[in-house]
Amino acid sequence: VIIQIENDSEIPIYTQLTNQLTEGIAKGYLQAGVTLPSVRMLAADLGVNMHTVNKSYHELEKKGIIEIVPKSGAVIKPPRRISEGDSPYLRLSSELKPLIAEALVIGMEQTQIEHLVSNLIQDIKNK
Amino acid sequence: VIIQIENDSEIPIYTQLTNQLTEGIAKGYLQAGVTLPSVRMLAADLGVNMHTVNKSYHELEKKGIIEIVPKSGAVIKPPRRISEGDSPYLRLSSELKPLIAEALVIGMEQTQIEHLVSNLIQDIKNK
Repeated sequence: VIIQIENDSEIPIYTQLTNQLTEGIAKGYLQAGVTLPSVRMLAADLGVNMHTVNKSYHELEKKGIIEIVPKSGAVIKPPRRISEGDSPYLRLSSELKPLIAEALVIGMEQTQIEHLVSNLIQDIKNK
Repeated sequence: VIIQIENDSEIPIYTQLTNQLTEGIAKGYLQAGVTLPSVRMLAADLGVNMHTVNKSYHELEKKGIIEIVPKSGAVIKPPRRISEGDSPYLRLSSELKPLIAEALVIGMEQTQIEHLVSNLIQDIKNK
């Protein structure tokens, strides 16, 4: 995965890193069981603060995407069956809701929003 | 609209305010043309810092949801026709993408994500 950090973006660097690693995993460039580079190494590679990489790894762990294993490092977790009441489902739902409300408020139609989401899924799945 | 601020939430207070105002507009509790309370008044009502309300109003303005009119205040904009290439469409798309990627990575199926989004739209539209 090639990570591209934009220093002049409105999006915090740790969020850019979290998003790009997540997309890299979604696309299959990084697979379950793989250990991500150490915080020190990735920070040096990207020319960012170790604290930034650390924050991103902890965010990925909180999202259930990686597991931080003592001595081994940040290991990518396998996907699992998610049901409607599960906490990752509820968390995603509460994160999606304000964006969906925003789309409706500015004038997007229901079908337009559904179409956008389907396109994004296809776009992420296709490398 | 009844705004409920959770002080011990992980979500910053200005974001909670932005999200709840957006949902209030999506549900039709607050309609286009209506002027939101002044920053000073809403801050006093909610017991939050004026800076917090100000930040939320500026975020709503950036999202194209309100217009800050000198002397009149924060006026809710009417919905408009949004096309695929429009900047609000592209912004929403780039905000939705990491969440969709996350859903796929943790193991949600395409149909499950599409179903969740349709449910959220219904949920927001129904008061």
